[in-house]
Amino acid sequence: MTDPISKGLLPEGFRDRLPPQAEAAADLLRTLLDRVSAHGYERVSPPLVEFEDSLVTRLSSARPQDLLRFVDPLSQHSLALRPDITAQVGRIATTRMAHIPRPLRLAYGGPVLRVRPAQVGPQREAMQMGAELIGSDHVDAVAELLGIALEALAAAGLSDMSVDLTLPDLVGTLAGGPWPITAALADMQTALDGKDAAALNALGAARYGTLIEAAGPADAALARLKALDTAGALDTRIAGLERLVATAAPHAAVTIDPTERHGFEYQTWIGFSVFAEGVRGEVGRGGTYLVRHPGGSEEAAVGFSLYVDGLVDAGLGASRRRRVFVPLGTDAALGAKLRAEGWTTLAAFTDADTPTRLRCEYALKDGELLKL
Amino acid sequence: MTDPISKGLLPEGFRDRLPPQAEAAADLLRTLLDRVSAHGYERVSPPLVEFEDSLVTRLSSARPQDLLRFVDPLSQHSLALRPDITAQVGRIATTRMAHIPRPLRLAYGGPVLRVRPAQVGPQREAMQMGAELIGSDHVDAVAELLGIALEALAAAGLSDMSVDLTLPDLVGTLAGGPWPITAALADMQTALDGKDAAALNALGAARYGTLIEAAGPADAALARLKALDTAGALDTRIAGLERLVATAAPHAAVTIDPTERHGFEYQTWIGFSVFAEGVRGEVGRGGTYLVRHPGGSEEAAVGFSLYVDGLVDAGLGASRRRRVFVPLGTDAALGAKLRAEGWTTLAAFTDADTPTRLRCEYALKDGELLKL
Repeated sequence: MTDPISKGLLPEGFRDRLPPQAEAAADLLRTLLDRVSAHGYERVSPPLVEFEDSLVTRLSSARPQDLLRFVDPLSQHSLALRPDITAQVGRIATTRMAHIPRPLRLAYGGPVLRVRPAQVGPQREAMQMGAELIGSDHVDAVAELLGIALEALAAAGLSDMSVDLTLPDLVGTLAGGPWPITAALADMQTALDGKDAAALNALGAARYGTLIEAAGPADAALARLKALDTAGALDTRIAGLERLVATAAPHAAVTIDPTERHGFEYQTWIGFSVFAEGVRGEVGRGGTYLVRHPGGSEEAAVGFSLYVDGLVDAGLGASRRRRVFVPLGTDAALGAKLRAEGWTTLAAFTDADTPTRLRCEYALKDGELLKL
Repeated sequence: MTDPISKGLLPEGFRDRLPPQAEAAADLLRTLLDRVSAHGYERVSPPLVEFEDSLVTRLSSARPQDLLRFVDPLSQHSLALRPDITAQVGRIATTRMAHIPRPLRLAYGGPVLRVRPAQVGPQREAMQMGAELIGSDHVDAVAELLGIALEALAAAGLSDMSVDLTLPDLVGTLAGGPWPITAALADMQTALDGKDAAALNALGAARYGTLIEAAGPADAALARLKALDTAGALDTRIAGLERLVATAAPHAAVTIDPTERHGFEYQTWIGFSVFAEGVRGEVGRGGTYLVRHPGGSEEAAVGFSLYVDGLVDAGLGASRRRRVFVPLGTDAALGAKLRAEGWTTLAAFTDADTPTRLRCEYALKDGELLKL
């Protein structure tokens, strides 16, 4: 084996972003956060490292074995790198910002790290951004978040988006009311997770098979959900879905999968995922959930997370900079004027510095700007 | 002891940035990077984690015991969190970007982590940004970097800056030429580091004491350096200092400390630190240095790093957002129009959401914007 150190290799799952992708990633993060910020979501920036126990206690989307952990040489405490920022925002909202009136709108963006890749692809470090609204899981709040997510992604250059809506607590709601079951709820959900009608029959819950069939494009799915005999138990869910379908419609095709729970186990009444043509895996996801206060009480919340790396890998965000060669001896004020106009200037230090070597498409010559 | 986890406490040396400081930090980083980018410095984004050996080998500004280390559960390799980004940029420049013509201008910005705080204050996670020019240590290159650093800091809102220039290889240059010594160079440098004229006398190198006396405001220091009988060995150094003093003068008061080496051990002919009224500790530092290629050859380089947290703590970057209350039932197009004009809109979901609760200074009423 050749020496990975001297060759400058990186550990498996970590990478350098080079030009222009590094710039693209920063530009995309900026675009997404600017859109979120315009809706009153205030930035918070939690640390990369926390007590391992604190992260494990609050994590919903990652498991303890997903954490990169180490013993702090200073304090001898077990610390861990954050695998997700949502849980940290919940901590902030329920401790240092517990006294701020609700709804509290917060935004964040930064790297997260895991032992194993969380998203599609081999990366263990990812750039996550998102917004959380603490203090409500009202359908208007969900519509605001879903709308902002899609608006921000459109501003970042995504088109051909699709949104999957799920109702993570649907089965439990029906089982506890109009559609009583004799089997254990967990067995039911396993059968539904596998879209396994035969297993549902064996559990004496054949009617739940109609929920599997209700999955599909929003209009048809809503019609099938409305036709179910649920004694009105789904009325607010259906009204909520209709609202969110209308919110998403300008930006995305919408599908509904009423029983899908994978990755939404911690969501309350609604979950959503966003996909887009040309982007591998999920672009982002969100939904309603509960944050726990130190005293033990719980507060409703809704939020979303977007994954910037997939957008970069899809070629978004890479704006071409107009590089202007500035020859030796040029008046500094000329360069400053060009930069103020949005040009990127590259100064020569010696005669060996040519426009070609400095990768410039323009050059200053006798004070005039030339396209090369 | 009360339970730090349920109270949401953080490990020593880590902190949350809350509004408006988190936004200020992001704004400052953006301002600094935009200025650097306008001069043709292209963004690179190395990972937070590398092989421990790789970081240790390339580190110049941090020691192995400064690293937060862990064993990767996946590969069983020893990995470490980066304590600095400069060394990573050097790795990129000499490996994946080794084929790009020089001078190669690169920029970066991101968090760095250490076992113990590197800067003033108790923090172990810091936001570092900077620029590196690989392939030259020409005085014009140093002037470009120093000028960009000061211009960027001025754009970020700093005034009353001061720059300290140092000549890290001065003593070695003199000792190897016009001012030969009989003592060991290391002993000489220890005496000079301590500004210890008596120790210099004891080492039979009393004339080096004149270098200590040459430290001070740039004009006087330059005059004293010129008056030294160095058989012309300092001519290029003095010309370089004069050039850099002129570069810094529009933004900062300049001092010269010819023998100061502390923190500049890895710099070649010139080092600089930037300070500013109201900011604790260094705002940033830079200078010339050598990057090592995998084959063992070395390449001249010059760069600087700036520390964003000190600027945030000094109150810079916190722009006040104009928050507008948008009542229930407002036409969505009205909010979108305000956002496009640069306003921040906060939508009400229920009658309980008032301008006061949402911390708005403006409100939409009957389609009109009111100052509250």
